[in-house]
Amino acid sequence: MKAEIFSIGTEILLGEIVDTNSKHIAYELASMGIDVFYKTSIGDNEKRLLDAINIAYKRADIIISTGGLGPTDDDLTKETFAKYFNKKLITHKESLENLKSYYKEEYMPKSNLKQADMPEGSIVLVNENGTASGCIIEKDNKIAVILPGPPSECLPMFNKQVKPILQKYTNKVLLSKNLNLCGIGESNASEMIKDLMLSSTNPTIAPYAGNNEVRFRVTASGKTKEEANKILKPTVDKLYNIFDEYIYGEDEQTLQDVIVKKLIKNNMTICTAESCTGGLLASTIINVPSASKVFLNGVISYSNDSKIYELNVCEGDLQKYGAVSEKIAIQMAEGIREKCNSHIGISTTGIAGPTGGTDEKPVGLVYIAISIKGKETFCKKLMLTGDRQKIREKTVHICFSNLLKLI
Amino acid sequence: MKAEIFSIGTEILLGEIVDTNSKHIAYELASMGIDVFYKTSIGDNEKRLLDAINIAYKRADIIISTGGLGPTDDDLTKETFAKYFNKKLITHKESLENLKSYYKEEYMPKSNLKQADMPEGSIVLVNENGTASGCIIEKDNKIAVILPGPPSECLPMFNKQVKPILQKYTNKVLLSKNLNLCGIGESNASEMIKDLMLSSTNPTIAPYAGNNEVRFRVTASGKTKEEANKILKPTVDKLYNIFDEYIYGEDEQTLQDVIVKKLIKNNMTICTAESCTGGLLASTIINVPSASKVFLNGVISYSNDSKIYELNVCEGDLQKYGAVSEKIAIQMAEGIREKCNSHIGISTTGIAGPTGGTDEKPVGLVYIAISIKGKETFCKKLMLTGDRQKIREKTVHICFSNLLKLI
Repeated sequence: MKAEIFSIGTEILLGEIVDTNSKHIAYELASMGIDVFYKTSIGDNEKRLLDAINIAYKRADIIISTGGLGPTDDDLTKETFAKYFNKKLITHKESLENLKSYYKEEYMPKSNLKQADMPEGSIVLVNENGTASGCIIEKDNKIAVILPGPPSECLPMFNKQVKPILQKYTNKVLLSKNLNLCGIGESNASEMIKDLMLSSTNPTIAPYAGNNEVRFRVTASGKTKEEANKILKPTVDKLYNIFDEYIYGEDEQTLQDVIVKKLIKNNMTICTAESCTGGLLASTIINVPSASKVFLNGVISYSNDSKIYELNVCEGDLQKYGAVSEKIAIQMAEGIREKCNSHIGISTTGIAGPTGGTDEKPVGLVYIAISIKGKETFCKKLMLTGDRQKIREKTVHICFSNLLKLI
Repeated sequence: MKAEIFSIGTEILLGEIVDTNSKHIAYELASMGIDVFYKTSIGDNEKRLLDAINIAYKRADIIISTGGLGPTDDDLTKETFAKYFNKKLITHKESLENLKSYYKEEYMPKSNLKQADMPEGSIVLVNENGTASGCIIEKDNKIAVILPGPPSECLPMFNKQVKPILQKYTNKVLLSKNLNLCGIGESNASEMIKDLMLSSTNPTIAPYAGNNEVRFRVTASGKTKEEANKILKPTVDKLYNIFDEYIYGEDEQTLQDVIVKKLIKNNMTICTAESCTGGLLASTIINVPSASKVFLNGVISYSNDSKIYELNVCEGDLQKYGAVSEKIAIQMAEGIREKCNSHIGISTTGIAGPTGGTDEKPVGLVYIAISIKGKETFCKKLMLTGDRQKIREKTVHICFSNLLKLI
C-alpha cells in the first residue's frame, strides 16, 4: 500500500510556515508499513490541486491531505476532492452541532457553516479540537483522507480516528529500533556494515547523521508484533556486537540523558568549569529534567583572573602555557571538582573563533579535561572545524562521549 | 518565472526529520518575486527522482533541490540530475581541496571523494560549512539548483551564492529590511499597523514571529537597487516611528549581538548567576564573537550551598523565601556583580519543570534580576508556559530585552 501526503496552503508555498504535520503523519505511516514515496505541497488553488491529485493517484493508492478546510473562500480542499470523486457536499448534522457548540453563545460567522458540509458517502471525522471536520472518501480503490491544517487539530484526528481505519487496510506490523552511536562518523560506521545494510531487506538498516551523532534505524515487518520483534532482534544484536563501544542509547535517548541516568545510578555528582563553551556544557546537562540530582555547580571562567580565583589554576602555568593548554584544562577540571567536592569535574578551554587564533594555537584548538575522584585526570586535545557555535557544540559532544566511557 | 522546491531524502518520507530548508527557500523566492506552486519531497531513489524531475519541468522553469549530496551510496541527487541533463560528473578541484581541508589530518573515508565530483559545465557552489559542494545546471531553459541537506550548509549556500545568481534571471531588484522587535507580541504588533500592511503593495510588510520575537520584513521591488531603496525607506521610517520602543535591531542582528555591542561601546562588563537557566544565559552571550571583551565570569548555582558560598546569598533568606523568590534573585545578581567587580550582574532562578512545581510556586515561575553598579537592582517575576527548554529560552530572552532597556 502506497500513500502520498499533501500539505495544502499558500502560506506553505510562501515560506511563512513550516509544515510539521507531514513529518508526524509520515512517521506513523512508516510504522504501519504504509510506504510514502512522495510528499507534495500545493497552494489553495483548484486547478493545481486537481493536477496534483491526478498525478498522485498514478503512483499511490491513498492521499492524506492536510490544510485548506478553513471557513474562507480560498479554502477549497474538500470541494476539490469532492469534484474529483464526483461527490456532492451535504450538511453533516454532527459536524454542524460540533461547529455550533464550538461557538457557544458567541456570534458565528456565516462563512463557517461550510465547514459542516461533507462529501456524500464519506466517513466524517468530527473535529474534537476545532471547527473543521475531516473525512475519508473511498471510490474505485482510491482513498482520500482529508484533514484540517492546524497541527493541534490534524494530529489528534489522525492518531485517534484515521490510524485505526488505515490499520485495517495493511496486513502487517512494523517495528523499529534506533541505535544511537557516538565517537564514530556516518561514513565510517556505514562502511563497517556496508554488506549487512545491502543484504538486509527485512529488517532494513538505515543510517542517519546529525548533531555530531550517527543513528542506525532497524525496521522489521511482520504479521504480528511478535513476529516483527522476532525478525528485528537478531539484526539489532548483530549491530550491538559490531558497534558495542559506540552505541550509547536507543530511540529518543540523548547522550546527556544517558549520562545523567548513569550518574544518578552511581550516586555521583558533577561540576563544570567552562571557558570556550561558555555555559553550553552545563546548560546541556541541565536540560535533562533530573539533572538537579547530580549537577552541583558550574563556573564559566572566561578571564584569567577567574581561572585563578575560582578554580585555583596556577598563575605561573597560565603565563607559561597559556589558557588554552593541557595543563590549564587539567587544573580547571581538578579545581572545580575539589572546590565543590563533587565526584566529577569537567573543563573546556579553547579558541572558538572567529578571531583569536594564532599559528601555534589556531581557531578550533580545544582542550577538554575530566577529573574523577581517585582516578588520573583525563585530558584530550581537539582540532575542530566549523563556526563558533559548531566548535562549541562539538566540544560539548566530545566531552559527553568521553565522560560516558569514564563513568 | 516559476520554481519548484525538492527536498530529497528517505528520512523525510519516513517522518524522521522536518524539512525546514524549503520554508526558508520558499520565503526567499517569494521575496525575489519568483513563484513557487509546488514543493515535492522525494526519497533517495533514482527512478522516483527522475519521474519527479520530469513532472516538475512541465510546470516550472527551475528546480531547487536540497539533500542527497552525502558520501554514501544512497545519496544520488547529483548523479540523477546529471543523468537527466545528460552530463558527466567530473572532479572539481576546488571542491576536492575544500573536502581535504575539512578533514585536515584526520582520516577521510574514500567514499567522501564523490562529494567533489560535479556535473560538467555546472556552476559549482563550494560549501563553506561542510564537505558537499552544490551546483547550478542550466540547459534548454531548464535550471536546476542542487544544494546539500543540512540547514547549516544549505541555507548559507542559498543566501550567499544562489540568490545573487537567481536575481539575474528576474528583471527586478528586490530589497528587504527586517526590523526586529522585542517586548511585544505578533498579534498586538500586527494590529497596530493593520491598515498600513493591507494598503502596502510595494513595499510589502510581512510579520513573522519566532524565538520569542517579532520581525517585520519590508520588501520593495524596483528596476534598480537605488529605486528599490527609495521605495523602501519611507515605510521603514514609518515603522521606526510606530515601534520605536520595540525595535532593537535589523536583519540578522540578535538581541545578544546588540547587547554585546552596546556593552563594548559603554565599556561595561557583565557577569551571570544562573539557577534555572543553567548556563544558557551565559552561553547565549558568549556565542557572540566579541563577548570576551565584556563577559567576565558566570556561575551556575544549582544547589543552595553554592548560592550561599559563591554568591553570598543569605542563608536565612533562602530558608524563609525559598530559592525561587524575588529576594534571592536580587541577592544572586548583586552577589555575582560584587564578587567579580563587574558593572552588571544578571541572575535567574525558577522552576523549569517538568516536576518540582507546587501550588504556590508552579512550574514556569521564574524570577530574573539585573544589578547595575550605582542603580537600584531590577527584578521581575515571570509566569512562563512551555516545556523545560522553552521556559529556559524564554527566560533568557526576557533577561536580554530588559537588560537592553537598562543599559
